[in-house]
Amino acid sequence: MKHSNLSIKEIAELAGVSVATVSRVMNKNGRYSAQTEQKVLDIIKKYNYKPNLIAKGLRTNNSLCIGIIVPDITNEFFAKIVRKLERAFFQRGYTVFVCNTDENSAVEDKYYRELAAKGVVGIIYVSGKTNKSIELGEIPTVYIDRTPTNATNAIVITSDNFQGGYLATKELIDNGCKNIIILRDSRQISTQTDRYLGYKKALEEANINVEDSNVINTTVGYDFAKETIISKIKDGMKFDGVFATTDWMALGVIDGVIKSGLRIPEDVKVVGFDNITISEFCAIPITTINQDVNSMALKAVTFILDMIHNQPIDTKREVIPVSLIRRKSI
Amino acid sequence: MKHSNLSIKEIAELAGVSVATVSRVMNKNGRYSAQTEQKVLDIIKKYNYKPNLIAKGLRTNNSLCIGIIVPDITNEFFAKIVRKLERAFFQRGYTVFVCNTDENSAVEDKYYRELAAKGVVGIIYVSGKTNKSIELGEIPTVYIDRTPTNATNAIVITSDNFQGGYLATKELIDNGCKNIIILRDSRQISTQTDRYLGYKKALEEANINVEDSNVINTTVGYDFAKETIISKIKDGMKFDGVFATTDWMALGVIDGVIKSGLRIPEDVKVVGFDNITISEFCAIPITTINQDVNSMALKAVTFILDMIHNQPIDTKREVIPVSLIRRKSI
Repeated sequence: MKHSNLSIKEIAELAGVSVATVSRVMNKNGRYSAQTEQKVLDIIKKYNYKPNLIAKGLRTNNSLCIGIIVPDITNEFFAKIVRKLERAFFQRGYTVFVCNTDENSAVEDKYYRELAAKGVVGIIYVSGKTNKSIELGEIPTVYIDRTPTNATNAIVITSDNFQGGYLATKELIDNGCKNIIILRDSRQISTQTDRYLGYKKALEEANINVEDSNVINTTVGYDFAKETIISKIKDGMKFDGVFATTDWMALGVIDGVIKSGLRIPEDVKVVGFDNITISEFCAIPITTINQDVNSMALKAVTFILDMIHNQPIDTKREVIPVSLIRRKSI
Repeated sequence: MKHSNLSIKEIAELAGVSVATVSRVMNKNGRYSAQTEQKVLDIIKKYNYKPNLIAKGLRTNNSLCIGIIVPDITNEFFAKIVRKLERAFFQRGYTVFVCNTDENSAVEDKYYRELAAKGVVGIIYVSGKTNKSIELGEIPTVYIDRTPTNATNAIVITSDNFQGGYLATKELIDNGCKNIIILRDSRQISTQTDRYLGYKKALEEANINVEDSNVINTTVGYDFAKETIISKIKDGMKFDGVFATTDWMALGVIDGVIKSGLRIPEDVKVVGFDNITISEFCAIPITTINQDVNSMALKAVTFILDMIHNQPIDTKREVIPVSLIRRKSI
């Protein structure tokens, strides 16, 4: 069967009904008899009619397209969010454009304009740059993970990063650690700051001083974390616990500690963050904080569809609980 | 700055030139003076004009949208391909719809119709079901990884899976293995069949009999591979080498062998396939076959753009070389 180029007018003629009736049947909208419906559907089936959604998008002002802007889908955390978003939108009739930015502001801006020009009716911004250099316009936008600093009234969905930092640090304290360092992203990102504040709270509760020298800012990623920890140990730094604010950093810390001749968990205990697959299957499975990716994605879909349909939204900020996953690094 | 709703006609009036000239400048197409170009660009900049690509798509018959159909972007191999495709298309002015199917035929078909209705000008099918139940129509389509059985003249880009199976098995033989089993996907997929044929070739070259009982068909994935290998060892099966046709299966085999009280690589040597991150960071890093994801993706982009622009394509099948990565499982 070839795609048919039948117009709605031709379908109406073939079915012996008006154009308005064909339109009502196709949109399942309004009054028509079961008999009329069957006649129209028979013609559509017989000629394999496919509605042109582009033209339809221009008429109804709903392209049924959503843009997802994300740093990098080869990062498992982002892949899981995008996957879940995409499926949820698909079930509701929407298709998604996926845009990887590598956290490059210029690429983000270019994508944003591209998506606007393509007529998307909503944008989900996953872990975008927090300081937007472009005007976001009136396209409904929901932010996941990071809070933009200059988008007023932004709708943000984020894990409870404060709780995550608190749970991770408390687990180290409860297992006897007295001298706990934190490895965090040197950029001032809301998620990282919240994890640090949770760390601080847990230490304060246990009457342990929060030493500035125990807060180590580094570039995220396995290699940087590994090199950093090796050089700190070489410099004579003493610690018995590490809260690494991502699992990849935790893995780097573990390998750096072992390379320095110390043992995990006997000499140093480590907690990560994210619960990516590698944290389960690496040599010493990592105790970590699990983010509820499914809830984050589903909440984002609900919010953006409400915005598209001009429904009121109760909240500007939705915080999703996290949980501690115990493995072998403590 | 708000988005401007200026029409091309209004831009022409403001710049004091004809509509045709504005169109030529915007499309960088044809003859106009540098002065005219500057006048038009100044107006566009001043009023922050954004071309409506949807309307443009309807006029030029090029929506600049590409559909990517893929089983699951949370699988790292697929994420890497989609990531590379997306970036390469973006650099050429195209945006991509990403559709995850879970290898479900009904979902694949629904997505295909959805993409057709949205006016995509090309589709990249990554590891799709090989037996299409729908007519693919005239949308230019390139297949990555798997060869469709009922799409005539399909353009297919695939790793050299035969060579991969051969290299993996030869590495086991060269390291002293005499009794090598293969774990493969029980579905008859072209990639898996080719890997098996490579395994067979390496054994034949070394004058080792290819025993039917050494060919183990299973469901892909870590858990199935682990359970399968544990039960085979329990049943008294003897082997000193395993070619697992995916890295996740290789990891399952390794954990199953260890759980059965045997040692890797002293008692059993293992090779995987794919070179996913986990194969590098797991407890016993896995010797594996690397697929050249970048070359596959770039070739797909070149082919589909040639098809969109009605350029002749020399080949119907592009086979990308693979390479052996040596680690600790041999």
